[in-house]
Amino acid sequence: MRISELARRTGVTIPTVKFYMRQGLLPTGTPTSVTLAEYGPAHVDRLRLVRALVEVGGLSLTAVRRLLATLDAESPAYAASPEEADPAGRSIAAEAVRVAQDALPPEVTPGGPKPARALSAVSALGWQVDPESTALRQLEAALVALDTVGLPPNISTLLAYADAALRVAEADVESIPTGPPAEIVRHVVVGTAMYEPVLIALRRLAQQHLLK
Amino acid sequence: MRISELARRTGVTIPTVKFYMRQGLLPTGTPTSVTLAEYGPAHVDRLRLVRALVEVGGLSLTAVRRLLATLDAESPAYAASPEEADPAGRSIAAEAVRVAQDALPPEVTPGGPKPARALSAVSALGWQVDPESTALRQLEAALVALDTVGLPPNISTLLAYADAALRVAEADVESIPTGPPAEIVRHVVVGTAMYEPVLIALRRLAQQHLLK
Repeated sequence: MRISELARRTGVTIPTVKFYMRQGLLPTGTPTSVTLAEYGPAHVDRLRLVRALVEVGGLSLTAVRRLLATLDAESPAYAASPEEADPAGRSIAAEAVRVAQDALPPEVTPGGPKPARALSAVSALGWQVDPESTALRQLEAALVALDTVGLPPNISTLLAYADAALRVAEADVESIPTGPPAEIVRHVVVGTAMYEPVLIALRRLAQQHLLK
Repeated sequence: MRISELARRTGVTIPTVKFYMRQGLLPTGTPTSVTLAEYGPAHVDRLRLVRALVEVGGLSLTAVRRLLATLDAESPAYAASPEEADPAGRSIAAEAVRVAQDALPPEVTPGGPKPARALSAVSALGWQVDPESTALRQLEAALVALDTVGLPPNISTLLAYADAALRVAEADVESIPTGPPAEIVRHVVVGTAMYEPVLIALRRLAQQHLLK
């Protein structure tokens, strides 16, 4: 198909399609003449994904680029996990979750002091997490910020949040497909980014419901 | 205190302090000479709040401006709720939640078609929400986007998310303070924005824990 058809099918304007190509978020088409190129279904899928990540996921182009690199990578971690040794695709999923999390906002400063409050919260919950992970620094930043604005979280609120987060994560892990590594990575990377807006919207609606 | 002391205490650079003042996010100080002004504790509090909303909440300056306007407003809705008629501050909280939600990202296009899928999901849950609310359009956009990228949510995942969101919202509502309307509004507006990063970070950590 021509670029005009690609734009029409995905609801993206032609200048935006060209911009994404220049930014390396979308592969260029197959040239059919000096000024024309041909695009296929893979371009439609990729463009829909980029649009959803930007418009609904609220991701920056940098974050989208990192997520797409993960999707496209034939990384040693995935290649080294034969299906037999890892029937549920767990280690592939674990690796993909980490990469996706690191690519997603909010940005946190790497290095610096240990995320002491987050570490102590997570250890009180009995959770096994990577002490170097971005998510731990994000939790630390959020807890410190709540102190700063004079709304320190109390224990029962934090426990309710942790309990809810665990239920959601259980549903996430259960929904990971079996199948080729590429499919697992796609599901985890896209799901990690795209289910966050679902959770946030549902929390807001539940607040409305409870205050009616 | 001088602007240098204000910057030091809040960890914000002097140019950023001046930028926030020009943007109307921070009141100007009391002039003490042609080039100097005096700042007080209210400036420190406001600057810490703006910084937390921007850096941890990830809010745009436009969103911060709207939230601050809510905090500063003596709106008829609050004034018309005498303490006797509304001892728990419920109607004040309900109004503040709506205003806060509308000010927060992600942006959604107002008007347009009815958010049919979100309405049907919420009605299946038995939740009473405002059919015109931003949060409902955000949920619709998120559900449609998941379809677009080929990851349509199944019922059990959605139920798990809704159940988790309800628990979190219950904790939110329980933590609303009794007291003067201004305090309720501040708690709700800031809490709505600043607890979202806590929830997102905890979900990511729970995913790591479950995949260990």
